[in-house]
Amino acid sequence: MSLPTRGFSFRVDAEDGDARCGVFETPRATVETPAFMPVGTQATVKSLTPDDVASTGARIILANTYHLWLRPGAESIASHGGVVGFMKWPHALLTDSGGYQVFSLAKHRTIDDDGITFRSHLDGTMHRLTPEEAMRVQALLGSDVAMVLDECPPGDAPREVIENAMARTTAWAKRCLDTEPAAGQARFGIVQGGTELDLRMAHLQTIAALDFDGIALGGFSVGEPPAQMYELLRDIAPAMPSDRPRYLMGVGTPTDLLRALSSGIDLFDCVLPTRNARNGQALTWGGRVNLRQARHRDDEGPLDARCDCATCTTYSRAYLRHLVKADEMLGPRLLSLHNLHFYGSLMREAREMIRVGKLHTWVESTLERMDAEDEVGGIEG
Amino acid sequence: MSLPTRGFSFRVDAEDGDARCGVFETPRATVETPAFMPVGTQATVKSLTPDDVASTGARIILANTYHLWLRPGAESIASHGGVVGFMKWPHALLTDSGGYQVFSLAKHRTIDDDGITFRSHLDGTMHRLTPEEAMRVQALLGSDVAMVLDECPPGDAPREVIENAMARTTAWAKRCLDTEPAAGQARFGIVQGGTELDLRMAHLQTIAALDFDGIALGGFSVGEPPAQMYELLRDIAPAMPSDRPRYLMGVGTPTDLLRALSSGIDLFDCVLPTRNARNGQALTWGGRVNLRQARHRDDEGPLDARCDCATCTTYSRAYLRHLVKADEMLGPRLLSLHNLHFYGSLMREAREMIRVGKLHTWVESTLERMDAEDEVGGIEG
Repeated sequence: MSLPTRGFSFRVDAEDGDARCGVFETPRATVETPAFMPVGTQATVKSLTPDDVASTGARIILANTYHLWLRPGAESIASHGGVVGFMKWPHALLTDSGGYQVFSLAKHRTIDDDGITFRSHLDGTMHRLTPEEAMRVQALLGSDVAMVLDECPPGDAPREVIENAMARTTAWAKRCLDTEPAAGQARFGIVQGGTELDLRMAHLQTIAALDFDGIALGGFSVGEPPAQMYELLRDIAPAMPSDRPRYLMGVGTPTDLLRALSSGIDLFDCVLPTRNARNGQALTWGGRVNLRQARHRDDEGPLDARCDCATCTTYSRAYLRHLVKADEMLGPRLLSLHNLHFYGSLMREAREMIRVGKLHTWVESTLERMDAEDEVGGIEG
Repeated sequence: MSLPTRGFSFRVDAEDGDARCGVFETPRATVETPAFMPVGTQATVKSLTPDDVASTGARIILANTYHLWLRPGAESIASHGGVVGFMKWPHALLTDSGGYQVFSLAKHRTIDDDGITFRSHLDGTMHRLTPEEAMRVQALLGSDVAMVLDECPPGDAPREVIENAMARTTAWAKRCLDTEPAAGQARFGIVQGGTELDLRMAHLQTIAALDFDGIALGGFSVGEPPAQMYELLRDIAPAMPSDRPRYLMGVGTPTDLLRALSSGIDLFDCVLPTRNARNGQALTWGGRVNLRQARHRDDEGPLDARCDCATCTTYSRAYLRHLVKADEMLGPRLLSLHNLHFYGSLMREAREMIRVGKLHTWVESTLERMDAEDEVGGIEG
């Protein structure tokens, strides 16, 4: 039950097929799994207060090391009691290693076996990210869970490139574990391997043999068809250590979450619910709702009749559409609250269904209902 | 005590010099005066929910007829129970006539004695605003208080232009009163006259003689020096009917409010607290605070130690500065909440001071303290 790092534990309470329902304990929070972690990139889940975020059921959020390292700076955040003290989030926090954003945002990055040199996208200053630096910065940020630095190859990379990224990720994982652990901070390893099942299984074996508190799958949802990810997860997830949390990084849509947890994934994070909210899109039990569509103009009904969040119990679709069309900040705020509430409810219901052994039927009927009313890409009104 | 329109009343409870403390009752709310009305231009006080707004002490807000008439449309809003039903604001609402925004936002506007023809800034469609149309649209918006259509001359207009605007405003005021009253909707007249005291007093006499539920001063804070406005108000405000609410439109800074209520003004509205919040500026008991300044970077203290709003009791200046610098939506939200809370507290304390006959001393010491720490225009950090 106890994980390698003192103060952390994980236990599986119920199983249903490959899916499992459990509890991940950190020094700051009790996280019921499967769980979705809202993304608070810059020490804020965009537009929402910590109270808002907690009201959606979330007990662990993610912050991005790259952003906070560059602004306001890791030392500054450390002096304010870490990210949780700075933003007044009273529950658990996971930080990524910074590597993924160095690749997607920074300029002039060069990677070698020792680390990555890059230019800040904010002010052009040069920085060096190594496995050791990633752990040092995350120790300053004070997260409950730190991620090791990995190399995530492009989705369409040839086999050889994937193998090289795996080897580098393994070497970096060991170097991360060789650093002095920060008190109260668990460390998760990352499995790469692209969409090649044999590579994934081999790398999983390597990473699982190391002394990590949890195992993550990186490099998914980077362009491959969702069905291919689901198929891979059906083999990979059950092969991951059953006594440690399994985390699928950067995923995903409601369908992605239901498919992945059915295969035994415990933790998820994704910008989708908050980013789509800022674009006027709601995720609901009836599928995706694009509030820019003209058909909502006179709709007195709630966004999602099945949802009990403050947005759905207070406002009409007509009003939410007005806010989106008028580019009013309250729109993204109310939709972010709803979308995260929906993700939280999806996880809570999934846990209940696993406990009573009815997950499969519930997943299929939930997906069917979402498909029926999905209105993405509809006509702008 | 009863005002001309059924369901509305106003009473003065206490006086201190020219200042007064009273209660304005509408069918939807009990508004203690002096009161500040937050601006909810497009049926939303930017970034805030109705609960947030009510938590600042506000019981009446303002919405802009021009914006809502063009989008989503007055008939649409009427079908949703008016602005208050649409946005779920459970207290009172005042709407302006639309005239001011036609002049500041619309394209190709032409004014004649009958009304104003203009092109929408949103889609270029042509519209016609007349005194009768302003009342018809406001009836559809369902506000507690409708404002008559007036002509507001530029701040530097010559005397003849001001006199013409006054004459037209008088004629339009009578036409507004000649329209069929909407049930539960009071009507306020507007006094123009620029910065010419004799014109202001003459027009006040004209408008005060009409059957309005309240009297507003338009055309202030349009470029003239604040001291000139304070001087004019010292003569004009006490000459306004004492048995009806006195409303100073579009004003202003904390100093403006304290000076104007000292002369006997009861109601204010202004975008300043919410607009400045979106620019990273807080208004506090210690003066204006520009959160972009470097000196707040490591400040663990609250924005305003005297304030008990959620922003000041939860977050540090360092965190608020980070949100502003990182252009995070939570920044404007938390600063808007604080700024409106500060305005609400300023009004509440002013009412208390009027009741105990200590307004003058309190105003002077409050202004002195604000001046001492004012940091507008400071160095960007």
